[in-house]
Amino acid sequence: MQPFAETQLTEAVLARLAGCKDERMKQVMASLIGHLHQFVRDVKLTEKEWSQGIEYLTATGKMCDEKRQEYVLLSDVLGVSMLVDTIHHANPGGATESTVLGPFFVHGAPEVPHGGDISAGLAGEPTWISGRVLDTQGAPIADASLDVWLVRPDAKYDVQDPGAGMQLRGRLRTDAQGRYAVRALKPVSYPVPTGGPVGRVLDHMGRHPMRPAHVHFIVTAPGYEQLVTHLFARGDAYLDSDVVFGVKDSLVVAFEPMSDAQAEAVGMPKGSLHVDFDFHLAAVDPTRKGRAALPAVEASADPS
Amino acid sequence: MQPFAETQLTEAVLARLAGCKDERMKQVMASLIGHLHQFVRDVKLTEKEWSQGIEYLTATGKMCDEKRQEYVLLSDVLGVSMLVDTIHHANPGGATESTVLGPFFVHGAPEVPHGGDISAGLAGEPTWISGRVLDTQGAPIADASLDVWLVRPDAKYDVQDPGAGMQLRGRLRTDAQGRYAVRALKPVSYPVPTGGPVGRVLDHMGRHPMRPAHVHFIVTAPGYEQLVTHLFARGDAYLDSDVVFGVKDSLVVAFEPMSDAQAEAVGMPKGSLHVDFDFHLAAVDPTRKGRAALPAVEASADPS
Repeated sequence: MQPFAETQLTEAVLARLAGCKDERMKQVMASLIGHLHQFVRDVKLTEKEWSQGIEYLTATGKMCDEKRQEYVLLSDVLGVSMLVDTIHHANPGGATESTVLGPFFVHGAPEVPHGGDISAGLAGEPTWISGRVLDTQGAPIADASLDVWLVRPDAKYDVQDPGAGMQLRGRLRTDAQGRYAVRALKPVSYPVPTGGPVGRVLDHMGRHPMRPAHVHFIVTAPGYEQLVTHLFARGDAYLDSDVVFGVKDSLVVAFEPMSDAQAEAVGMPKGSLHVDFDFHLAAVDPTRKGRAALPAVEASADPS
Repeated sequence: MQPFAETQLTEAVLARLAGCKDERMKQVMASLIGHLHQFVRDVKLTEKEWSQGIEYLTATGKMCDEKRQEYVLLSDVLGVSMLVDTIHHANPGGATESTVLGPFFVHGAPEVPHGGDISAGLAGEPTWISGRVLDTQGAPIADASLDVWLVRPDAKYDVQDPGAGMQLRGRLRTDAQGRYAVRALKPVSYPVPTGGPVGRVLDHMGRHPMRPAHVHFIVTAPGYEQLVTHLFARGDAYLDSDVVFGVKDSLVVAFEPMSDAQAEAVGMPKGSLHVDFDFHLAAVDPTRKGRAALPAVEASADPS
């Protein structure tokens, strides 16, 4: 039982929504206010904790800039981003499963030819990533666009290294048979940025900040739902404890050694790795609402 | 019934708290994560709405500076600040009721002698505010400190007017009989700052931004619980719809005309108003935890 004065206050705040003309806004705010108040009552939030909460939310906002979105990261580590994904993509019906976008996507990555190299001369394990883009019936989709990006072997993304320019990211297109191929490096597991409010709360919760190694993709083709996903490296130590809860079994793939003949056939050095994965896109569902435009993350864009 | 994949995700996030060594942190985060996820599921938050939410939280953080705390304001208009107050001060046991601090408190207001004038030469209705500071048994508390501040007749606080310096704020002390008195102006009802994210959400919810006229007090004395409260002006049009839900019946007082004799006795002009109010402070309860330190709002401090 909650004391009357407390529930009465919540009723008063909810009643103040009577004049809201936007029915969806009314529904969302009523649920948000109800849950926020119930949280405060459940834990009997103290005045000091309230004050710490205000400071935390403020600091998280101030940490955001064109290269870092700390609130997206907070949503990610609290599982909220994956929950939104799960609600809207729970039954892809033969399409490839989606996962979080993450904070390191950059608009305007360079176009890369079929089999082109995005490893930017960095040392690492050369990896040939190839496959096809297909519809849910297995028919190839020609001229689909694939944005691909991944972490550097030093466990940083290019945008985390001022002046690095574009590294390990590019935009591919499928050929008439729906095929794509790119030369990259094997990704490594890495920590999300921990030098801000999200790092502090992870530490206080007793959680590690690691993501299992993965390659990001956004696959787009006219007439199909855009797919935002990763391919995770099988065997990674953090597959069962991804800090952002992004792992789905169907997205875990083998990074396998290429035979010398395979490597030679595509111009890769001996001992290279190979990932083979076919993406399946769902046809556009005109009844589905509320797809997010990709956030306006700018490139670090210094080509030096 | 929630789909299995969605509740499974919430369970996974909660399970990740297993390593949290701070039991209170664990309790607070578990409740927060549970309510946050249930909110997302209840309204089936869309990806677009999630993205708007991220942008909203970011903008609210960026609006905060040393003179404006937009997150405190957001907490106020969603009734969260008053809920925290209600949970911890529901039964003052003979002490004066508390209410929200609000965003316009300033540390370091000038000391004002008994009956001193804080109206800073501003035009308005001269008002004599006086009474006593007592304990819950009615015994006077000598040398109690009263911070008093109120809005100007133009519906702004001094800190909202760059260069205005300190106006309508000061720190009083009680005499040996527990008496205080100050010369001020009658406060007016006013809108909370609407030029930022909080103003946008109020507008979208169909709510007005007004607070009923009131005078702020923080009353402090060694050995007593600090009291953060207002005195509201009886008859104000917004008493029933305070945007921050701060009104309590016991804090609504009359601003009554003084007789000529009364006015002359204290050196007030004819036609002045008078408020008489005794504050009752509770003795410190050593078992109560988590009192907030006052937030570090700096004075605009330009005495020009």
